[in-house]
Amino acid sequence: MEIVGRSITRVDAVAKVKGTAKYVDDHFVPGMLHAKAFRSTIANGWVKSIDVSKAKALPGVVAVITYEDVPAHTFPTAGHPYSKDPSHQDVADRNLLTRRVRYVGDEIAAVIAVDELTAEKARQLIDVEYEEYAPVLTAEAALQPGIPEIHGGTGNVLGRGGYEVGNMAEAVAESDHTFADEFSTQVVAHCAMENYSAYAYMEENGRIVVVSSTQIPHICRRIVGQALGIPWGRVRVIKPYIGGGFGGKQDTVVEPLVAFLTTKVHGRPVKMELSREETFISSRVRHPFQFRIETGVKNDGTLSFRNLEAISLNGGYASHGQSIANNCGTKFRQQYRQKAIKYSCKTLYTNMPAAGAMRGYGVPQAMFVMESHLDDIARALDLDPVEIRLKNIPETGHKDPLNGIVALSNGLKECLVKGKELIRWDEKKSNRANQAGTKRRGLGVACFNYASGTHPVGLEVAGARIVMNEDGSVQLQVGATEIGQGSDTVFSQMVAETIGIPLSMVHILSEQDTDISPVDLGSYASRQTYITGMAVRKAAEEIKAKVLDYAWGMTDIPAQVMDIVDGWIVYKHNGEKITPLSEIALDAHTDVVHAKPFTADVTNNARVNALAFGCTFVEVEVDIPTGKVEILEIYNIHDSGTIVNPTLAEGQVHGGVSMGLGYALYEQMLFDPKTGKPLIHNLLDYKLMTALDTPEIGAHFVNTFEPTGPYGAKALGEPPAITPAPAIRNAILDATGVKFNDLPMTPQRLIAKFQAEGLI
Amino acid sequence: MEIVGRSITRVDAVAKVKGTAKYVDDHFVPGMLHAKAFRSTIANGWVKSIDVSKAKALPGVVAVITYEDVPAHTFPTAGHPYSKDPSHQDVADRNLLTRRVRYVGDEIAAVIAVDELTAEKARQLIDVEYEEYAPVLTAEAALQPGIPEIHGGTGNVLGRGGYEVGNMAEAVAESDHTFADEFSTQVVAHCAMENYSAYAYMEENGRIVVVSSTQIPHICRRIVGQALGIPWGRVRVIKPYIGGGFGGKQDTVVEPLVAFLTTKVHGRPVKMELSREETFISSRVRHPFQFRIETGVKNDGTLSFRNLEAISLNGGYASHGQSIANNCGTKFRQQYRQKAIKYSCKTLYTNMPAAGAMRGYGVPQAMFVMESHLDDIARALDLDPVEIRLKNIPETGHKDPLNGIVALSNGLKECLVKGKELIRWDEKKSNRANQAGTKRRGLGVACFNYASGTHPVGLEVAGARIVMNEDGSVQLQVGATEIGQGSDTVFSQMVAETIGIPLSMVHILSEQDTDISPVDLGSYASRQTYITGMAVRKAAEEIKAKVLDYAWGMTDIPAQVMDIVDGWIVYKHNGEKITPLSEIALDAHTDVVHAKPFTADVTNNARVNALAFGCTFVEVEVDIPTGKVEILEIYNIHDSGTIVNPTLAEGQVHGGVSMGLGYALYEQMLFDPKTGKPLIHNLLDYKLMTALDTPEIGAHFVNTFEPTGPYGAKALGEPPAITPAPAIRNAILDATGVKFNDLPMTPQRLIAKFQAEGLI
Repeated sequence: MEIVGRSITRVDAVAKVKGTAKYVDDHFVPGMLHAKAFRSTIANGWVKSIDVSKAKALPGVVAVITYEDVPAHTFPTAGHPYSKDPSHQDVADRNLLTRRVRYVGDEIAAVIAVDELTAEKARQLIDVEYEEYAPVLTAEAALQPGIPEIHGGTGNVLGRGGYEVGNMAEAVAESDHTFADEFSTQVVAHCAMENYSAYAYMEENGRIVVVSSTQIPHICRRIVGQALGIPWGRVRVIKPYIGGGFGGKQDTVVEPLVAFLTTKVHGRPVKMELSREETFISSRVRHPFQFRIETGVKNDGTLSFRNLEAISLNGGYASHGQSIANNCGTKFRQQYRQKAIKYSCKTLYTNMPAAGAMRGYGVPQAMFVMESHLDDIARALDLDPVEIRLKNIPETGHKDPLNGIVALSNGLKECLVKGKELIRWDEKKSNRANQAGTKRRGLGVACFNYASGTHPVGLEVAGARIVMNEDGSVQLQVGATEIGQGSDTVFSQMVAETIGIPLSMVHILSEQDTDISPVDLGSYASRQTYITGMAVRKAAEEIKAKVLDYAWGMTDIPAQVMDIVDGWIVYKHNGEKITPLSEIALDAHTDVVHAKPFTADVTNNARVNALAFGCTFVEVEVDIPTGKVEILEIYNIHDSGTIVNPTLAEGQVHGGVSMGLGYALYEQMLFDPKTGKPLIHNLLDYKLMTALDTPEIGAHFVNTFEPTGPYGAKALGEPPAITPAPAIRNAILDATGVKFNDLPMTPQRLIAKFQAEGLI
Repeated sequence: MEIVGRSITRVDAVAKVKGTAKYVDDHFVPGMLHAKAFRSTIANGWVKSIDVSKAKALPGVVAVITYEDVPAHTFPTAGHPYSKDPSHQDVADRNLLTRRVRYVGDEIAAVIAVDELTAEKARQLIDVEYEEYAPVLTAEAALQPGIPEIHGGTGNVLGRGGYEVGNMAEAVAESDHTFADEFSTQVVAHCAMENYSAYAYMEENGRIVVVSSTQIPHICRRIVGQALGIPWGRVRVIKPYIGGGFGGKQDTVVEPLVAFLTTKVHGRPVKMELSREETFISSRVRHPFQFRIETGVKNDGTLSFRNLEAISLNGGYASHGQSIANNCGTKFRQQYRQKAIKYSCKTLYTNMPAAGAMRGYGVPQAMFVMESHLDDIARALDLDPVEIRLKNIPETGHKDPLNGIVALSNGLKECLVKGKELIRWDEKKSNRANQAGTKRRGLGVACFNYASGTHPVGLEVAGARIVMNEDGSVQLQVGATEIGQGSDTVFSQMVAETIGIPLSMVHILSEQDTDISPVDLGSYASRQTYITGMAVRKAAEEIKAKVLDYAWGMTDIPAQVMDIVDGWIVYKHNGEKITPLSEIALDAHTDVVHAKPFTADVTNNARVNALAFGCTFVEVEVDIPTGKVEILEIYNIHDSGTIVNPTLAEGQVHGGVSMGLGYALYEQMLFDPKTGKPLIHNLLDYKLMTALDTPEIGAHFVNTFEPTGPYGAKALGEPPAITPAPAIRNAILDATGVKFNDLPMTPQRLIAKFQAEGLI
C-alpha cells in the first residue's frame, strides 16, 4: 500500500492552524438573533409561577418563550440510529422547556434578543417561584420509597440490564478462590474546546435549517423533527468544522431548542451558544458508576467465573442512559475466558446533569473495576499481573456467545509482550522488592477490549459519494463527521489508495449537510475508519472499476489487465504506463457518445464488528506524604488492525491517554449534597490536565490485520482513554501496597488512605 | 398528469419577493478585498507604458496587477462544453489582462484594495500612454488590407461557415421569380438586473473557489482552469441565486480574473462587481449582422431556393463568435421546404465589446431577415403572409438533411391558425384596404423555429441526484442553473409527478457547487426543461423503482402491481392504499438488514434534439408624422410541446416578447465612428422598455407532444424573443407600404424613410 499506512499531514491542518476553518461561531448571518436559556437554580422541584414581563419589556428582547409555549410531547436526545422497534428506541423523557425541573441548569424558558448581552440581561429579569424537593444525588436516595419521582412512573429506574452465560453453579464449585470487592467512578465532563453552539433559521418553504457543532447531523435531523413534531425531511442540519466532541455532541443539546425558537420568530435566525459554565452544568457528563464484583479463580490464576453488579447514575434525563451500562457489561464479558459470567445493572435517574455518551461509553468504568480487581487477585495469588492476563485471554477467533462477534484478529497478547519490553517490566519488578522511604515506585498494567461500531446492537449504515473531475481528481463526500479525530484524512487516504491517485487529487468536503451528504449515522463508537471506511472504499472501488471499464472502451485493452497507479492507467503485470487517468476522465466528460462523468453514491450497511484490543503500561512514583503521583513512564499499546495514518493514530493515543490520566488522578464534578448545586463548573476549578501536567506518552501499535475492516483497520478512537486509570491504580498498589477503588485518585484521597493504613 | 402541466407557484417566489434569496452580493466574507479593472480608453492600439506607482501608494491598496503579471497563454471564454477535438474548441484569444487593447473598456490592469471605493480611486491614479490605431467598427473597415490586425494572423476574420443543400442550379431554373434584398441588425445588450459579479478565494489546500453569478458553473470551472493554466479539478465554482443572464452569463466575464487575483494576494477573497456602465461596455453584447438574401419562388408562393449571406461583427474577442453565425444559418434552413438552400457567413473582429451569447443566439437576426423578406415576396406576389408560410412549412417528421434532426412534433401550422384567430386577421385585413391619414394600422406575422439544446453540434450531458429522506420527501440536486427562468420549479414538478409525491415533498437545492452538483453544462440553448429534464426524470424513475422494489420486499406485493400516488403506495389497478411511502422510506433508513436509503445519481447524455416552433402576430398603429409605432395587439403562439407550468411559460413569453419589442423598436448600443467610444452605456440612454412602455402581451400555446422530451416538453426559453421584430416590421409595412430593413425601427429612422418615400 502506497498511501494507506503513511503519516500524511492531516487535510485540515493548515486551515485549522491558520484559523480559516469555519466553525459555527465563524458563520456570520445578518439579522441573527441570540437566545439564552433561563435555567433552574434548584435541583429538584417544579415552577409554581413564572413572570417574564420584565424580561419582555427590555429593549432588544424579541421574544420570551417558556414551558407554556412548547409542545406537550416528549422526545429523546441520544445520538442513536432510529429503530421502528419501540423496545429499541431511546427513552423520550424531555420537553423543549420544562416546568418540572430535574437538575440545577434545567431549561425553563428561553429569551430571544437582538444580541447576546441583551439576552443575558433579560434572562436575569425573569422571576420564578419554585416548589422544591430534596435533591436525589445517590443510588440510595433515588431508590428511597415515597419520594417524588424524577420522572413519574419510573421509580427513578431508567433501565435495567444484564446477562448470564455458562454454568455459574459449576464454575463457583470449581473455583479455588473467590474474591469480591467494590469500586466506584466519578462524574467527569468532556471539556471539548468548542462549547455547544447552534443556530437555526427557516427557509421560505418552511423548512428549518440547523447549523450545529454536532457529531451526528443525520440523527440530529431526526431528533429535531421528533422534538418539534414535524416530518423529518422538513429539517436540514449542517455541520461545519467542530472543535471536539468526545461523545458530548453525539447528543442533541441545543439543536431542538434553537430549531423551535426560530419558528417562534417567523424563521429569523436564532443562535444559542452555551458558555463554558452552561456546558459544564447543562450538557452531558460521563456516568458515575458503583460496582460490586466477584471473581472465582483457580490456583494457577485461571478465571472460572466472574460476576459484576453495576449501578449507573444518569442525571435528570435519559440521554444515552441504560446503553452505557449495557456496553459496560459487554466489554466486561468479551475480554477474558471463563466458565461462567454474569452481569446485572441498573441505571437510575438523579438530580444531576444528564449523563450521555463519552469516549469509551461505559468501558473506562468497566475496565477500572475489572482490571483493578484482577490485579488484586494476582497479588493475592502471588502471580505476575501480566501473566494472569496472558493466561486468560481467549484465542484469536473466539466468538462471543451473546452478540456473535468473532475476534478474527486479537493482538492483545502481543500488546502485553510489547508493553513489558517497553517499560522493562521484569527488570524493574525484580529490583523493587521491599521499597521503603517516602517516594516509592510501582508498575501497573491494564487491558481493554473495544468494538468497532455498534453492530449488532445498533444499525451501521454509512455512505460515501465520489465524483471525478476532468483532471482525474475527485471530490469525496461522507456523512460521517470529522470532529478532530482525523477521519477526513483517513478517508482521503483510502480513496487515493483505492483509486490509485495522489492524495492531492482527493478533495474531501468536510462540511456535512443532511440535504446532500450521504446518509451516515455520524461519529461515535469508534466507527469512522471501520464502518464509514467500508463505504468509502466501496465507492472508490466503484469509481476505479468505472474508469478501467471506460479505459477499456477507449484503448481496447481489457480492464482486467490494467491498473491505476499514481494517476496513470498502467499495465498491471509490469506497471508500464498506458495513458494518464486525466485523459480517461476528460473523455468521460466530453465524449459526444459516451460522456458520463464517473460518480459513485454508495451506502454500506455493515453487519460485522471487530474487537480492538490494547493495554496501558505505566510506572509511577508515589510521594507518600503529599499523595502526589508522578507518571514516570506510560505506554499505550494498541491492536487496532492496520494503522491507516500512524501520526494521526499517535495523536489519538496521546489525546485519549491524557483524558485517561485526568480521569485517574484529577477530574471530577462535585455537587453540593444538600442542594444538588454543581460546585465545579469552570476550567479553573475543574482539574483538566494541561500540557505541563502531561507526561510523555508512548503510543505503540502491534501489527495485526482485521479481515472485515477496510485495509485491515479497526477501532482506535475511544480505546486510548480506557486503561490509564486502572493501570495507574495498579501501579500505585504495586508501589505502596494500598488499593484505591474509587476514582479519581486525588492526593487528598491518597493521603487519607495512607494515613488509615499507617503509611503516614 | 397531476403536477406536470399545473401552474405551481415558483419554488423560489417567496424567497425572491422577501429578499431572503442570496445572490453573490449578499454573501458576506470577512476580509473581502475588492478589485477594479483599469480599462482602455481607446478602442484600438497598445500600451506603450504604464505607471501604477501612484495607485500602489494609495493607502488601502493591496496590489496592482498589470498585463506584465499574467500568464502568456491565451484562453477562450465562451460557455461551450469542452471538446478534445481542436477544430471544435472555442477560439482562445484572450489574456487575463492585455497590453494590446482591442476596444474601449479592454482590461489592462486590476487594482485590489480593501474596499471598492479605494479600488476605484486607485484605478484613477494609473497612468498609461497608448499607441493608437484607427478603430475598426464595420465589416468594410475590418477587411481593409494593410491595417494592424486586431488579432495577429487572422486578417480580422474570426471564422467562416456555411452550407449548400440541394441542386441550386435546378432550383434557380425552376423559379418564376427571384427576390433579393439587404438587411442589418444592431448591437444590443442583455441588461440583466444583476450585473456581473464574482469573488474568489483559495482554500488552504491551494484550490481556488469562485462564487459567481454564472449560468454555467461546470464550464466556468474549466475555463478558469484554462485561464490560470492549472488542473481543472483545482477550481471550484459556486453559483448562488442569480439576477438574470439571458446568455450574457453563459460566458466567463469576471471569473478568470478574480480567480487569478486571489492567487496574487495569498488566497484572500477578492471580489469584482461590474458597474452597470462596465457591464454595458465591457461584458458581452448581441452580434450585429449584415445580410444579403436572395429567394427564388414559384408563382404560387412555393419556395424553390433560398440563399443567405451573413456577416457577423464580433467585437474585440472571440467569445461565442462564429457559433452564432452558424446557428443563424441552421435555423434559416430548418423552417421551410425548398429545393435548394445556401448559406455563407463570416464573423469579423472589430473594436467593439465582444459579442457573445444572447437569448436566441443569432436566430432573432436570422428570422428578422428571412421573415421580413418573405413578407416582401408575399406582397410582391399578392399572397397573404400567413398563406405563403403555411404553404412552405414542412410536414411533421421532416428530417433536416444536415444535422439529422427529425421534427417529431411540429405545431407551426397550428400556431399560425391560432394566431390568425386571436388577432382576427382576416376580418381586419379586409377592412384595411387603402388606409389614408396620419395614423395607419397594419398586421404582421413572423415565424420561427428553435432547437432544444445544441445536439448534434454540442455535447448534451446533464445530471440529477435525488436522495429520499425518512419521511419520503426528497432533495433534488441538478447542475443546471436556475437563472430566473423557473427551471427549479419545473424540475421539482417533474420529480413530484414521476415519484408520485406532493410538490411540497420535493426540496430542490438551488445553489450549484461544482464540487458536488451533478455535472451539467448549464443554462443556455433553451435546454433545461428538455435536456436536464431528461436526467431529472430518469433519476426520479430510478428512485420510484427502488421504492417499489423495497416495498415488494416489505409487503410481498409485486412491484409491478403497485404505484406511488400522493405519497402513498397503492394498488395500480384500483388506487387502493397499501402503506404510506414514509413507512417504506423509514424502513429503508432503519432496517437492520436491508437499510439502504434511496438515492439516484444520474447522468444523461442526450443525443436527440427537438424543434420548437411558433410565431408572433401583431397589430400596430403607425403615427406617420412622429414615426411612433404603437403596439395595439401582440400574440406569441408557441409550439413548445407539453407546457410543464403554464404560468411560468407565460412569464417566459412575456419576458421574451418584451425583449423582442425593444430589439424591434428601441434598443441599440451606438459607438462613435471616429473613436470607437460607446455612446450609450447606462440605463438612462439605453432605451430598455419599462413596464409602462410594454403593451399587453398575449401568450398562447398549441397542444403538441414531443416524444423525445420529458413529458413531451421542448424548448421555450429563447423562442419568445425571436419574432416580435420581423412581425412588427411586417405590420409597419402592412400599414404604410414602407419596408424597414434595419433594426431598430426607431422614430428617427421611420420619419427619415417616410420623408424619403413621400409619406410626409
